[in-house]
Amino acid sequence: MPMPDESVHPEATGLAKHTVDAHQKEEGIVFWSGWFCPFNQRIWMALEERKIPYRYHEVNPYKKEQKFLRLNPLGLVPTLEIKTSQGSKALYESDVLVEYLEDLYPASDEHPSIFPSDPYEKSWARLNVQHVTKKILPQYFKLQQSQDAPSQSSALQALYDGLRTLSSRVKGPYFAGEQFTAVDMSLAPFVRRFYILEEYRAFDHKAVGEGWEGYKDRLLARDSLKNTSSDDEHYFELLQRYLKNEAQSEVAKATRGGQSLP
Amino acid sequence: MPMPDESVHPEATGLAKHTVDAHQKEEGIVFWSGWFCPFNQRIWMALEERKIPYRYHEVNPYKKEQKFLRLNPLGLVPTLEIKTSQGSKALYESDVLVEYLEDLYPASDEHPSIFPSDPYEKSWARLNVQHVTKKILPQYFKLQQSQDAPSQSSALQALYDGLRTLSSRVKGPYFAGEQFTAVDMSLAPFVRRFYILEEYRAFDHKAVGEGWEGYKDRLLARDSLKNTSSDDEHYFELLQRYLKNEAQSEVAKATRGGQSLP
Repeated sequence: MPMPDESVHPEATGLAKHTVDAHQKEEGIVFWSGWFCPFNQRIWMALEERKIPYRYHEVNPYKKEQKFLRLNPLGLVPTLEIKTSQGSKALYESDVLVEYLEDLYPASDEHPSIFPSDPYEKSWARLNVQHVTKKILPQYFKLQQSQDAPSQSSALQALYDGLRTLSSRVKGPYFAGEQFTAVDMSLAPFVRRFYILEEYRAFDHKAVGEGWEGYKDRLLARDSLKNTSSDDEHYFELLQRYLKNEAQSEVAKATRGGQSLP
Repeated sequence: MPMPDESVHPEATGLAKHTVDAHQKEEGIVFWSGWFCPFNQRIWMALEERKIPYRYHEVNPYKKEQKFLRLNPLGLVPTLEIKTSQGSKALYESDVLVEYLEDLYPASDEHPSIFPSDPYEKSWARLNVQHVTKKILPQYFKLQQSQDAPSQSSALQALYDGLRTLSSRVKGPYFAGEQFTAVDMSLAPFVRRFYILEEYRAFDHKAVGEGWEGYKDRLLARDSLKNTSSDDEHYFELLQRYLKNEAQSEVAKATRGGQSLP
């Protein structure tokens, strides 16, 4: 019998499929991607936001190509393959990739940065990306995978708390003001998947409090999010395994074991 | 009865004390520091390596000043206070601080960078800082706090593995070659404390394998490490609480609970 995750839909759908199709020609950067993964979607959004040329390559997480495993022995998406005259090199870890793209394509009209230019504001953005990753997401995964009412209730409250703290720091319309930054990008792919929490975990956007609903609507309306998002039904197909606590991803296993995210 | 950590020596000693004394005049940056903390020492090394003007301010972890808690409600060292005409702002988290200092003082002869200038090499350095933090340090803390032989033995082997992987990537003399970088800096404060593992946990530098001993000797000989290090006896006073698994720091508690480092 296949593992529960093995029958994942093999490719992006909806608007994301159009974006995939538009990024098939050879480029200096190959984006080894998994259409379903929200961490992966962060980097996809960064490539789109910053108008960086890339070729999209879907990775089947249960049938990884040898070439991919040579590039990144950890076998994780997102991985960026960087082609050089001496061959290919690889980088991974979404926070490292975001910084890499900033260094490779410094802020310009052609390639707008996703960080504020002021050093303090830039650091404040980085700290809040950490807030998303360390305080909000573990609760999101816990809520999704918890099977009993008390655990669900405590994860739900902790998720509200984390979102409330972030929300109170949003200058508006986005986190850092007019500019769409890495903070917005770090959270948006998860907010895109909150509809499942609303349906199955009593998540209620109103309960987060002042400012949140407007902010999350602006995240959901962002082109880079919409253009890298697949159809709801295919997310659901995958995420229902999290809802049943049967998912086998590294994140799912860490959450099950009470560990921090890997 | 005081908590086991409460009687920590109140200030830096040895060469570190000289460095503290040399950094008492007013500057635009105030370094809120704990002399004993290896994560804190990373930032202290960065300030020294990059010749950045700062005022040193010792934080008593068990009697935190109100001003400090207003700056950083989390109450964690290292915290950088940045003085502006509108008042003081604060930043924390050692990886965010390293990047902040790079943005505030871009690489120059006067302020040498602790990252390679090539974007790929810079990202590779960042990935290896993550290797230190995610793969090496949890095993270091586990080995220190484990009370039974089987746990100590498995942590020791995992620590050797993590060091061996890093060691195999060292170009020499330092991680990235001639330049001393954030990778060296992220590990050096911990290597400085390995003498305790040698004495109480059968840690043997030779067992790591080829290249390690020369590399660790070069880390230990680095001025920025020596000049921010206190006397052995005072580290031991503190670290023996870890050896008995009685330490009450956030890192100690996370290690005890089988969690990732906070």
